[in-house]
Amino acid sequence: MKNIGIDIGGTFIKAAIVENNGNIIISSKTPTPKEGTLLADKVIEIIDEIVKKSATDMNKIKSIGIGAPGVCDSKKGVIVSCPNIEGCKNISICSYIEKKTGIPTLLDNDANCAALGEYMVSDKRADSFVFVTLGTGVGGGIILDGKILRGINSAAGEIGHIVIDRNGERCNCGRYGCWERYASVSALVRQAKAAGLGQNVTGKSIFAEKYKGNKRADEVIEKWLSYVSEGICDMVNIFQSDEIVIGGGISREGDAITDSIKRFAEENSITDKNETRRTKIRVSRLFNDAGVVGASFLYTQI
Amino acid sequence: MKNIGIDIGGTFIKAAIVENNGNIIISSKTPTPKEGTLLADKVIEIIDEIVKKSATDMNKIKSIGIGAPGVCDSKKGVIVSCPNIEGCKNISICSYIEKKTGIPTLLDNDANCAALGEYMVSDKRADSFVFVTLGTGVGGGIILDGKILRGINSAAGEIGHIVIDRNGERCNCGRYGCWERYASVSALVRQAKAAGLGQNVTGKSIFAEKYKGNKRADEVIEKWLSYVSEGICDMVNIFQSDEIVIGGGISREGDAITDSIKRFAEENSITDKNETRRTKIRVSRLFNDAGVVGASFLYTQI
Repeated sequence: MKNIGIDIGGTFIKAAIVENNGNIIISSKTPTPKEGTLLADKVIEIIDEIVKKSATDMNKIKSIGIGAPGVCDSKKGVIVSCPNIEGCKNISICSYIEKKTGIPTLLDNDANCAALGEYMVSDKRADSFVFVTLGTGVGGGIILDGKILRGINSAAGEIGHIVIDRNGERCNCGRYGCWERYASVSALVRQAKAAGLGQNVTGKSIFAEKYKGNKRADEVIEKWLSYVSEGICDMVNIFQSDEIVIGGGISREGDAITDSIKRFAEENSITDKNETRRTKIRVSRLFNDAGVVGASFLYTQI
Repeated sequence: MKNIGIDIGGTFIKAAIVENNGNIIISSKTPTPKEGTLLADKVIEIIDEIVKKSATDMNKIKSIGIGAPGVCDSKKGVIVSCPNIEGCKNISICSYIEKKTGIPTLLDNDANCAALGEYMVSDKRADSFVFVTLGTGVGGGIILDGKILRGINSAAGEIGHIVIDRNGERCNCGRYGCWERYASVSALVRQAKAAGLGQNVTGKSIFAEKYKGNKRADEVIEKWLSYVSEGICDMVNIFQSDEIVIGGGISREGDAITDSIKRFAEENSITDKNETRRTKIRVSRLFNDAGVVGASFLYTQI
């Protein structure tokens, strides 16, 4: 059996037909329509195309899963709001697509989908699992006993908005000193600019400078990782989860990211020094495919 | 059916026979033995006494639940360590008591027991539930879908050790700026002393001063509540739980504590302004009995 995953982004809609083991059979990428009202029909068009292209029988598709970048009511299958897509408010996308395709359709926000994707391809399906995405912001998805933690209003897991410096900078959310304000890739770029590394730096270019031996880049990264570590250490103390997985494009830097974080967590978490059962901290395996693969697994959450 | 709850503290052992609805039939309080090795026999003695005194038939006791103030291996029924009871290391208390009494015996740490107690007497068994104890430190217990969140090593829920001010004071755990360092009742007392409210103040006396119209006490309390609020708001953003319940002796102050916290969480949490499903923040119902009542409910966690 196969499932379709759809990952709606502010710029592109990714789609894939995914096998039960997480393997992508075929995928596509289409610009996101400018108008939220066009979204549901666009998704149906994309599904038709990808199914035709793969020569898959529509009857072999068990479910469609959709990830959307905003507030989603998973129970009702409604995209409540997506700040980055105009007019994207209260779209009953699941019932609409189910009616048109006859296939059960499920919805969750993109961070939860990404977490689910990483979880489903983890070595031994961790019982408890925290996924942290470092990007424009710091997003999160928490999976406990195989279930996405959604809270009463599908808004749980906003781990970027825990405070690490209450006397610090104001966050976009209105609060002061949120983790995201210091630990996102946007924050790294701001910090690098302030340190004189140039006005056109990106997360990737800052790491490239470090690898070339640029000492200032190295210092900027180490300082930034100390911010990242604070929130990761908080997650260890709260969840003592089997795994904490770091995602987002920057996670491709691998050990250059996790080495410092692991050291900090080992030294600073509340975990007993003699404890052998410790939270494993690693980078993502699916990178940019986490969302689309995770969406295809939403059927496991019914 | 009835269950026995045992709440081992650093100073006293509380015991109670508890009905399925959380009602205490009879309770007792006995000094904790100075030596950890005497603990298991002492608990058996206490159980014998309380059962005799209540004229309950031992066959009517479904289970014994024990809460201990330290690291507990719930799966194995072993108290790993209790920093406040000398020589209390690796005590296989459950198997010992089961052998002597013939009654299934369960173990968890005291904060988790207190959380479970509050959860079991909540109005409508919240799906997700965060219990915060303000006392010498800041303790926590998290219950999701009716189950205590224990993590891989039974050490989850250490919410007092999330950082709210990374440039702040050093915590006993070694990290800088932990929530507990600012939001515990010990911290309130320290803050009141520093503000010139006298060297013999207690949490209770500081609130009493406030009620009498002492403006300085009022300011100290409001500042302290702003620290408490930071961590509560973090919990809202992470869990969006049905309830967050504040316990510990100080929670008897009721609205004088929760009013500020509710306001802060409403203004600062990530929860959408139009969202009607919001985390309910309230004080404990069981106060000092939360631990012993919760211990009696440990059988629900098997």
